[in-house]
Formats: sequence, structure tokens, C-alpha cells
Amino acid sequence: MPDEFDLIRCHFTRDTHHTALGIGDDAALLRPRDGMEVAVSTDMLVAGTHFYPDTDPQDLGWKTLAVNVSDLAAMGAQPRWATLAVALPAPDQAWLEHFAAGFFACAEAFDIDLVGGDTTRGPLNLTVTIIGEVPSGQAVTRAGAHPGDDIWISGAPGRAALGLAQLRGELQLSPLAAPDYLAALHRPMPRLALGLALRGLASAMLDVSDGLTGDLGHILSASGTSAVLEYTALPLGPLCAAGAPESIALAALLGGGDDYELLFTAAADRRAEVLNRAAGASVAVTRIGQIGPADEPRLLLQHADGRLTPPGVLGYDHFRSAATGR
Amino acid sequence: MPDEFDLIRCHFTRDTHHTALGIGDDAALLRPRDGMEVAVSTDMLVAGTHFYPDTDPQDLGWKTLAVNVSDLAAMGAQPRWATLAVALPAPDQAWLEHFAAGFFACAEAFDIDLVGGDTTRGPLNLTVTIIGEVPSGQAVTRAGAHPGDDIWISGAPGRAALGLAQLRGELQLSPLAAPDYLAALHRPMPRLALGLALRGLASAMLDVSDGLTGDLGHILSASGTSAVLEYTALPLGPLCAAGAPESIALAALLGGGDDYELLFTAAADRRAEVLNRAAGASVAVTRIGQIGPADEPRLLLQHADGRLTPPGVLGYDHFRSAATGR
Repeated sequence: MPDEFDLIRCHFTRDTHHTALGIGDDAALLRPRDGMEVAVSTDMLVAGTHFYPDTDPQDLGWKTLAVNVSDLAAMGAQPRWATLAVALPAPDQAWLEHFAAGFFACAEAFDIDLVGGDTTRGPLNLTVTIIGEVPSGQAVTRAGAHPGDDIWISGAPGRAALGLAQLRGELQLSPLAAPDYLAALHRPMPRLALGLALRGLASAMLDVSDGLTGDLGHILSASGTSAVLEYTALPLGPLCAAGAPESIALAALLGGGDDYELLFTAAADRRAEVLNRAAGASVAVTRIGQIGPADEPRLLLQHADGRLTPPGVLGYDHFRSAATGR
Repeated sequence: MPDEFDLIRCHFTRDTHHTALGIGDDAALLRPRDGMEVAVSTDMLVAGTHFYPDTDPQDLGWKTLAVNVSDLAAMGAQPRWATLAVALPAPDQAWLEHFAAGFFACAEAFDIDLVGGDTTRGPLNLTVTIIGEVPSGQAVTRAGAHPGDDIWISGAPGRAALGLAQLRGELQLSPLAAPDYLAALHRPMPRLALGLALRGLASAMLDVSDGLTGDLGHILSASGTSAVLEYTALPLGPLCAAGAPESIALAALLGGGDDYELLFTAAADRRAEVLNRAAGASVAVTRIGQIGPADEPRLLLQHADGRLTPPGVLGYDHFRSAATGR
């Protein structure tokens, strides 16, 4: 049986493109460019909590890195380097090979160097730390939303949640839509081009991993604001067209995580510029509501008839839910 | 039950000292100083593989960060920031409180900001990524050893292995030594001051985590050299005085990990300077052998009578050994 160092070398050592010293020493050495802040985020994925233990390892490899790319995209930061720590019940060469193929497919798609790793025996656990660059002072945080700002969402959030429902046999999506919705679940595509394009324009931004309303709540508390989402503006059309009843589509859109769409705010007088930059990044964006002052309740849904109600869908929480697949 | 965000906020949010944006957004923002390279290392600790599940959580908190500090010390890099991902079977507030107390005791001792985190449900797993700074081009790698260089070790390696043997009832250490040896196991003190002092002087360096001979092998392969360790030079005295028979002391010194002592090489004509700088860092260092040319076998032990033999003690490997406590 090869030892852990062989495992690492064999599967996780590739050429680096912008790294002074890569895997193999006590630490890697990076050279951020002058005038840059270094953005850092970490995510731990656990079998049984975040994914089914029998998930295709290639998909899992992609997703493990992609969710971290999404975190930097949500700051307007360019990902450049990542470390990967893997705990495995046993050194399974075939599994590692497929996992590495998916991981490096994502690394190559976003030009990221893997610069550090740890491989150890233990219950399946995948932890990535991603490191990137953003010009000093230009990162987009969650704290910058102002009353009057538009609220925007990229893509059609809810696809991953509906894909999971289909997998569980709770729903029958149309044969045309199903592959796309399963791909949203298994191979999320982080909105990096959009996140970078929104620097200097978005006032607040995050990526939706736990559900739109729950994650919007993070912007509202960080910014000290409230918000009204407009029911008629929500991009429910694609979800319904894919075969989801409207109530399920709404729950998936507002409460489903795992799409890694960008949720952001921008001044209302810059609507045309938002649409323009999103088009430049080849991503559809939809204006779904407006930021208000520091009222309670913080978040309301305005229905077609003008009624305002709490949205009534909560984000996913790992310690509250026993569900698998976040 | 508080949700995961409350858990993080409650236990792992402290003031930062050199960070533009800390925990709470999609990513943290760091500002490395001009002229610095950024050093990054990651370590995953798993219950049952690296520590007993009933390990004192405060010790575990210290050690989780300390082993990462040691990795940067071994590069001659100043640790500045860390991220921590924790998987827990259940959100145990008392455990988290004690773990955090130990973790932040280490963070404060070495002036490190915790800038990112993830808390999730899963089998106990602790993954730290540490990030630091080193003046460009001054990091000490494993690859710089030259034939003729002295081989040096800090402190008295083997103490942690003997402490573990005592815990397992395999050995009876003297009452005077036992607490110190158990502390070496539970609360290793990374040799940061020494690592920083050796910049520009050590030709190669690493921290001993898997055993002196195994880790020396990493320097030899990275540098393309061989080495002879001198039996009579090994710091066996303290281990024997603590109550270990000489053969056990030798096995602990050459094969025991977990002390996090620094193993380094330096030109033979700079011996006085090595001793001088180590004294400045208040750490004892011992010259234990010499680097040779690219011969096979790579590593030999010279006995008191001049005989040369393979050292015959291997480093610990997580996938080979079922032992607990690396």
C-alpha cells in the first residue's frame, strides 16, 4: 500500500502557474501582486452532511473547489491558490483519481494552483482553503447595502434543490430540464466572471449557499437594513417550466441552497450598468426587490396583490437539519 | 439549540490585530506587507488517528494551531493569520468553549488572527490553514542542504513519544520528568523564535512531526544528498535521565514524532553563529551529524565504534499504522 506521501504526490501534484513554491515543503510560498489584498475562505465538506457518501467522486472533486471559488467570486476577488485536506477511511486509489480529476478540472477552469495538502485516515472529509487577490479596498462585502438599493440575483436559483428533490423521488422534472438541474446540484458553476465584473458597482454581495432568504438575511444584518422581495419579480418561470408546481418552485427559489448564485445589491440608478456588466459576463441577472431602512421585520415578501408577508422559508442549517445534501 | 453561525460567533470571534476584514463575510481580507511572500500550510487532525477522542479539548485547541505554527517556523516565516474548520458530532458548547480557550491561547502567544471558519456536523475533525509572511526569497526550504553541512536538531526530540508511552502504561518515567514529557505531547511549543532566527543561516529546515529519521529523509531527497548521524552526538542524555532505557530513548529520539522540534542544516563554518542565534532564541540546539553527497543508502548511523548502519527506525505514517497519537 503506498504511503500518504505517495498518495499526495501521485494524485495532487500538478504544475503551478503563479506560485513561488508549491506542494512538498512545510509551507507553500505565494507572491500576491502589489496593491492587492489577499482574500481567504475555508469550507469543510463532510460525507452524510453535505453529500451522499456514494456521490460520484469526480463531481465531488469539482464541487469541493467550486464552492470555494464561489466564496471569492462573492467578494469580487480573483481566486489564485488553494489548499486541500482530505480524510479518507482507506486510501482508495480509484476514488482519489476520480476526485482529483474533478478537482483539477475546476482548478484549471478558474486558473487556480493547488499549493498545499494533507491526506490522512479518517471519516471522509474534504476541506479546502482558497486564497485570492482583490485590489485593495475594492472587495464587495455584505455590509454595504443602502436603503433604496435594488436587490439582484444571478441565474435561476432553486435548480439544485429541485434536482435533489428529483433524486429523492419527491418530484418529476421534465426530461429536458432534469440533466441541467442535476448538474446544478452536482457541478455548480461559480459566477466568478460576474463577481469580478460587479466590483465598484455592487454595494453588497454574497453567494447563495444556504437559501436566498437566509443568505439575504446576512446582508441585511451586516448592512443594518431591511428588504422587500417582490413576488412577481422572482425568476420562477424556468423552475415552473421544468415541471415544479409553483409552491415548490417558490420554496426551492427562496429556501434551496447549493446553486451558488450571486445575490447582490446596487444603487437603483445603476440598473442599466448592472445589466450591461452581467451581459458582459454572460450571466442573466434579475432584480427581485429593494433594500429598505432598518425596520423590523427585516425581510418581507410583497405578493401580486400588494400584501406583505414574511417569506416563511428558512435557510438550511447543518445543525438543525438531518438532511443530506445542503 | 443555537445554529452553527451562533456557535462560530460565540466561540471563535475575537478581535483581530492585523487583518482588514475578519470572520463573518464570504472571505477574510489580509494585507501582507510589501516585499513579503505569503507562506501557507494546512493540517488536518482527525479523532482516532491523530489524537484520542477524549483528549482534553483545551490541549487539543492549543495543539491544533501549534502544529501549524511549527510548519511556518520551519520555513522561517512569521505566522499572522489562520482559518479553522471544525466538524463535530454534535454542537457541544462546553467542549467548544475549552477547545477555543486552548486555540486562542496559542493564537495570542504567537500573535495570530483567526480570520475564517467553518463549523459543521460530522465525525470530529479539525483543519487549520495557517498563513504567514516571509521576506521574498528568504524562506528556508527542505532543498538547500549541501554536502559538508552540519545537521542540527533543537531541544530533546523523543519527549512526546515517551510521554505517549507513559500514557499507554508501556513505560514509567521519573516523576520529575513525566509532567514535562506529557506537556511535550499535549502542548507542543513550536520553535518559532528559532525558525525566524535561522533565516539566512540554515540551508534547509523542517519541523519533526513524523520522526527525526523519516523527516530527515525529506531533506535528503529534496536536496539530493545523503547524511550520517553520529550516535554519540544524539541528545539521548535527557531521555535516559527521565527514565527511558537507552534503546527506547533511541527509538523515541529517531522515530517519535509530535515534538515539533526543528531539524536543520547549516554550513560547517557557521557553527558558532548557529549556537549564538539559538541562544538568542532561548533554545538548545545540538549538532547530530553531517550531510554527504548523493550516495545510497541516503541515511546511515555512525556508532561509537565507527560502524555505519541504517538507523532502522521509520517515521510514522497515517496509512500504515493503526496507532493513535502521531
